[in-house]
Amino acid sequence: MSKAPKTAITPTRSEDYPEWYQQVIKAADLAETSPVRGCMVIKPWGYALWENIQAKLDADFKATGHRNAYFPLFIPKSFIEKEAEHVDGFAKECAVVTHARLEDDGTGQLVPAGELDEPLVVRPTSETIIGDVFSRWIQSYRDLPLLINQWANVVRWEMRTRLFLRTSEFLWQEGHTAHATPDEAEEETLKMLEVYARFAEDYMAMPVIKGRKTDDEKFPGAVDTYTIEAMMQDHKALQAGTSHFLGQNFSKSSNIKFLSSESIEEYAWTTSWGVSTRLIGGLIMTHSDDDGLICPPRIAPAHIAIIPVIPKPALADKVNTFCDQLAEDLAKIQYLGAPIKVELDKRDIRGGEKAWSWIKKGIPIRLEVGPRDIDNHSVFVGRRDKGSKEKYGQNRDEFIATAVETLEDIQKLLFQRALSYREAASKVIHSEKDFYAFFQDDQPSGFAIAHCNMTDALAEKLQKDLKVTARCIPLENNETAGTCIFSGDASDKKIVFAKSY
Amino acid sequence: MSKAPKTAITPTRSEDYPEWYQQVIKAADLAETSPVRGCMVIKPWGYALWENIQAKLDADFKATGHRNAYFPLFIPKSFIEKEAEHVDGFAKECAVVTHARLEDDGTGQLVPAGELDEPLVVRPTSETIIGDVFSRWIQSYRDLPLLINQWANVVRWEMRTRLFLRTSEFLWQEGHTAHATPDEAEEETLKMLEVYARFAEDYMAMPVIKGRKTDDEKFPGAVDTYTIEAMMQDHKALQAGTSHFLGQNFSKSSNIKFLSSESIEEYAWTTSWGVSTRLIGGLIMTHSDDDGLICPPRIAPAHIAIIPVIPKPALADKVNTFCDQLAEDLAKIQYLGAPIKVELDKRDIRGGEKAWSWIKKGIPIRLEVGPRDIDNHSVFVGRRDKGSKEKYGQNRDEFIATAVETLEDIQKLLFQRALSYREAASKVIHSEKDFYAFFQDDQPSGFAIAHCNMTDALAEKLQKDLKVTARCIPLENNETAGTCIFSGDASDKKIVFAKSY
Repeated sequence: MSKAPKTAITPTRSEDYPEWYQQVIKAADLAETSPVRGCMVIKPWGYALWENIQAKLDADFKATGHRNAYFPLFIPKSFIEKEAEHVDGFAKECAVVTHARLEDDGTGQLVPAGELDEPLVVRPTSETIIGDVFSRWIQSYRDLPLLINQWANVVRWEMRTRLFLRTSEFLWQEGHTAHATPDEAEEETLKMLEVYARFAEDYMAMPVIKGRKTDDEKFPGAVDTYTIEAMMQDHKALQAGTSHFLGQNFSKSSNIKFLSSESIEEYAWTTSWGVSTRLIGGLIMTHSDDDGLICPPRIAPAHIAIIPVIPKPALADKVNTFCDQLAEDLAKIQYLGAPIKVELDKRDIRGGEKAWSWIKKGIPIRLEVGPRDIDNHSVFVGRRDKGSKEKYGQNRDEFIATAVETLEDIQKLLFQRALSYREAASKVIHSEKDFYAFFQDDQPSGFAIAHCNMTDALAEKLQKDLKVTARCIPLENNETAGTCIFSGDASDKKIVFAKSY
Repeated sequence: MSKAPKTAITPTRSEDYPEWYQQVIKAADLAETSPVRGCMVIKPWGYALWENIQAKLDADFKATGHRNAYFPLFIPKSFIEKEAEHVDGFAKECAVVTHARLEDDGTGQLVPAGELDEPLVVRPTSETIIGDVFSRWIQSYRDLPLLINQWANVVRWEMRTRLFLRTSEFLWQEGHTAHATPDEAEEETLKMLEVYARFAEDYMAMPVIKGRKTDDEKFPGAVDTYTIEAMMQDHKALQAGTSHFLGQNFSKSSNIKFLSSESIEEYAWTTSWGVSTRLIGGLIMTHSDDDGLICPPRIAPAHIAIIPVIPKPALADKVNTFCDQLAEDLAKIQYLGAPIKVELDKRDIRGGEKAWSWIKKGIPIRLEVGPRDIDNHSVFVGRRDKGSKEKYGQNRDEFIATAVETLEDIQKLLFQRALSYREAASKVIHSEKDFYAFFQDDQPSGFAIAHCNMTDALAEKLQKDLKVTARCIPLENNETAGTCIFSGDASDKKIVFAKSY
């Protein structure tokens, strides 16, 4: 038997990536499947990640003039039917409410009763219901722009589900805005894409490519869909957020009209944009290693775990007193406008088990503190971005004085590492042959960047032949003219292709 | 025609209280009905109230050791059926999902398809689904106490709905905890009741009576339900929050067992507790007047509206510059740990309309600032707790220096006013005759406090005769022995009775 280094997660990434992903979630106590098909339970450590994502994005949305509101969970069937492409996109996978109560059928069995006149769909997204509301809120150009966001749960009846990445119910935010001109609406669409990109890179430490979707990959009903695409450690792409320019498609189907300053009645120009708990799946697959989750400090549920090491009961007081004071002093330090979050782990379990539990949960910094450290006025530091054995002693006061710097250093390093990873697995491709070779099953795959004039037929062929899709037409550094590698025609844009989640 | 003073809200409270309530909501732009029966749209100003309620309660929950998590929206029918009283309480009013997609029936009509093997209920409350999850999370006494909270939407298919007070879908939080002993669980139940009471009184400025529900008013499946009851301005009671000691009822039906420190397998003792968007209904009916909403400063979406008064265009620059600086200086002041929220209203509408819009929205302080005020280095102050005409000039710097004090003064006054109101409409009753007289339709009604040994038959009779219910058995100042006013038997507790929402 070959002796591989022991890792906390079995299997490792290279052994079985999908199973590794499930095991990281389990080991970090992030989420679990529920008895309701496709619906997940988000556990406290996973939900705290979502709360941190929410808090930062919510502040960003408000800083860009948006206000939160709340719209009904249910959408009348007739609303969903209003926009033709939209209904095609969502009717196949929606939860349908048909009855308003359960009733004893006479045999002691409860059966659905009180059938509704019109079935209700549990919202898969809210363009149609919000469009209906907007049609009443908007009368004049003075009511525009209308900039609204909703934090909500949505349901899409997925056949194959995977925790965070694809679940029947998920949590998200959906921005919905209406504008007087197409230019303003497009500007909004791109502004929110930029908010997402900055958040993904600066907070989740997840490098993203901003781009426009090709027609075959657009949101059902959109004129243009913009996306941020991230690379996971199996070289697949993850669509991490989308921002849609809806033109007048939904304002026409929902009758959102306004009287312009010249007293002309016009349809409004609308947008919608969203990110979801899927971001947590992206976070896991961007940073985690074979020892479990790695949380970027800026989004971590807690920043520092203190693990008292008590070799014999007589020393418990000494160690605990030191650790209590350490926790107190650390919690006085501000990080991103709030106190550093410290977990002082006094559980009655073995020290090794304790340390490994925090490694698996991905806490950025672990401090192990025993009697000898206390005598030296020092702490033993483990950074989660380093290997589990790479620990170092540091003067206690110096550790405290540099704690924020250390957290920011970890944050930066995680981003750089992910960026290098993506760059190493990205390749500019110049021929169809090389393209096919790049995506063969025995190859590492990754992001293929190629000049291409996409067509529906080509999209279908690539999906069928290689399970590859156009992820996006990058918005930046994409100005050189070239030749479509598939048709040989002139092409003015490159497309990023990948296998994807 | 008699000349009544003009009010912003028509009808007034005394003319038609229920309609006044709807008009206050409309005038303050808090919420509206939606095309989905019984579901409301919460508009930005109303949602901001909810966000402030959430932020403070969430901090309180975390400070008392609770962590947030998220559980599925759907509950399998078989789960709801597990607890007999529970299913009786909720089966009659629940949204039932029976299908997983919409499909063209061949005539171009979309109909529900993909029938589910087992119908799913949209959660009316989550004891059963969370109980199932807890049964897996809890193995040993070391896993206890388990202190979880969820912020979520829930659905109860109400027949008669009213914005915020009773809607088919509403937003709430539901705490769910499990403990090793009944004492601990009861302690938790009462601790969270106290958190609610402190929040209601100190933040919503809404005086509440803490009490225990009589058996006929308990939560379906609870051993004991505790409540906070507030008095509205029509003298009716509003149940503003409840905290339930569930005993082992749900742990037995959900099989939540743990191994005690003596290695004995025992059922856990559980609690649940919740408040909802109903609190906003309580806020409206506690403080608002015939000019519209009044927001207690500690929970207000914004604290101060600045209204530039520009008598002629040439003075616009002067006024706007002064107001910009005023807004900037005010926003530097901390109130409850965050900057004072200022609305600088530069809309292009008449000044009077502008001032009234803020009065109707209930902003605690309005500042009207015209050229003459600027010459005097002063501002014209309108406090929402005073009459709309009661305004006063104040030195600008003095206003800024005392802004927090003024806000806290308004907060205190609103509470005191509501408390006096309740006290004036509460009466200790010593006989059945007086009790019936108190609740006659031509009487002002209110809270009747009387010694009573409640029975199901009596509860039914009072409901039928007077539409009156036992609101609670107060926890405080309720130790004197007496005689049940209905049966004449000895009674050791007084009960608060009222008509209620």
